[in-house]
Amino acid sequence: MAGGMIYERIALIGLGLIAGSIGLRVKRDGLAGEVVGHARSRETRSKALDRGLCDRVTETAAEAVKGADLVILCVPVGAMAPVAAEIGPHLAPGATISDVGSVKQSVIDAVAPHLPDGVHFIPGHPVAGTEHSGPDAGFPTLFDNRWCLLTPVGASEDATDRLTRLWQAMGSNVDHMAPDHHDLVLGVTSHAPHLIAYTMVGVADDLRRVTDSEVIKYSAAGFRDFTRIAASDPVMWRDVFLNNKEATLEILGRFTEELFALQRAIRTADGAMLEDYFTRTRAIRRGIIEAGQDTDAPDFGRGRT
Amino acid sequence: MAGGMIYERIALIGLGLIAGSIGLRVKRDGLAGEVVGHARSRETRSKALDRGLCDRVTETAAEAVKGADLVILCVPVGAMAPVAAEIGPHLAPGATISDVGSVKQSVIDAVAPHLPDGVHFIPGHPVAGTEHSGPDAGFPTLFDNRWCLLTPVGASEDATDRLTRLWQAMGSNVDHMAPDHHDLVLGVTSHAPHLIAYTMVGVADDLRRVTDSEVIKYSAAGFRDFTRIAASDPVMWRDVFLNNKEATLEILGRFTEELFALQRAIRTADGAMLEDYFTRTRAIRRGIIEAGQDTDAPDFGRGRT
Repeated sequence: MAGGMIYERIALIGLGLIAGSIGLRVKRDGLAGEVVGHARSRETRSKALDRGLCDRVTETAAEAVKGADLVILCVPVGAMAPVAAEIGPHLAPGATISDVGSVKQSVIDAVAPHLPDGVHFIPGHPVAGTEHSGPDAGFPTLFDNRWCLLTPVGASEDATDRLTRLWQAMGSNVDHMAPDHHDLVLGVTSHAPHLIAYTMVGVADDLRRVTDSEVIKYSAAGFRDFTRIAASDPVMWRDVFLNNKEATLEILGRFTEELFALQRAIRTADGAMLEDYFTRTRAIRRGIIEAGQDTDAPDFGRGRT
Repeated sequence: MAGGMIYERIALIGLGLIAGSIGLRVKRDGLAGEVVGHARSRETRSKALDRGLCDRVTETAAEAVKGADLVILCVPVGAMAPVAAEIGPHLAPGATISDVGSVKQSVIDAVAPHLPDGVHFIPGHPVAGTEHSGPDAGFPTLFDNRWCLLTPVGASEDATDRLTRLWQAMGSNVDHMAPDHHDLVLGVTSHAPHLIAYTMVGVADDLRRVTDSEVIKYSAAGFRDFTRIAASDPVMWRDVFLNNKEATLEILGRFTEELFALQRAIRTADGAMLEDYFTRTRAIRRGIIEAGQDTDAPDFGRGRT
């Protein structure tokens, strides 16, 4: 599957964790003739060049997309609209434009109005990442065995196949999905869990009878995993919640309902209800391991050497 | 610190993850003359012998504790009272009795009434574990660089020092704490996060518009870590919540309050509030890494090979 040039020139707008991982993989495997990058900050552009995430950088996004047959927007979801407005007039005829945002319907609403006729718009979301961000965070194997979800809205079959081939060559499995369904599914598997982790870490910090040092020292299983999630990029996540409001609030509503039921079981000492519930959730974990999305290794102890 | 026999004979009551890790470490480093084990199930006893967690096993707990100078109760918190009632009359004069329960005040209430005069009762809680359970789950380095919290209530200084030396020899750092404060601290760092993870995994399973297969396939960052937490032993956790009711419910009350504030910020599109909040929680994560309780490696991508 790997090997062979798929695009002549790929332009990456935004040079953080995801763009960096794309650039490193594309260059490692020769998947494009050239990778051009743009980031607003001069420091980021210079780091990106040093790390070899792209062959050259440009000072403006408009300049970066000129002559590119694939443009990937790798900026936070809230920054998509102004970037699309800037690059729209400069896109090459027949170019494919995609993105890597964690929310899809609002990206479509933000970007589509700025695109000229004759370009292929294929929104995308690689379901991969770490809690690190910025131009130093990427690595070429980030997408291996992960899913990339495409939500094509105005693209030829050829253009969609070509972008699918690129993601497969970068190690991903590719699925197609309607944008609103994407936002609901990711609301469950990613957005709501992140908000919940952020909340729990905030509560721990606020609870004055427990010192920060105690929280930090005794944070083995449980809390430690929450802090890892809650360390993700604040601006990216602010934009995710603001742009997937409906699905996130619906899921949090269900979550609160369920949490109240479990709280009630604790209060009334309903041990059978608790044990049944915990046994059911354990089975879901087994499904994830069987689906190859995680290993069975006991990672709670991963701090040990 | 390691090396040198600290006890003549250690009796482990219950042979799961924690007891197994104690047994393997004690035998690896010669920290006791003999390790005797008891579990209710014949199959568990036989597995424990096969893995070398202990030198011999007994059919009853009463038999196991005879002549032991250290007895460690490694059963779920809800099983402490009947076990203490059974072994109380058989404890050797001057013996130390400890446990590894995740809750301390209710273990003290359950165990203390059954202890004869002249034994040293030092409840303990190694803050270490994985999502696996049973006699196959233990490994000798589980406690390395982890904290063990002791909440001595009726023990001589000599007896407490000796047990402290054992935990240090098994790789732990040791702190002393009042039982009720322990239960509040662990409520924040462990018990509430576990309940929240269980809840979110349950919600995902219930949401009929998203299929199980979708949840499983697209469970990269976020949800995957919740399922790992939610895969922990159901009986152990049922007992934790039933026995740390007050602290858990207090923390969950604070959590719900805070979650509502964040939900409101999403609903009213208060991006500044969200970004501030997420920036603050990120700083807490840094503190944990600096405290040596986790590494900076990007473990969200740990499924990759």
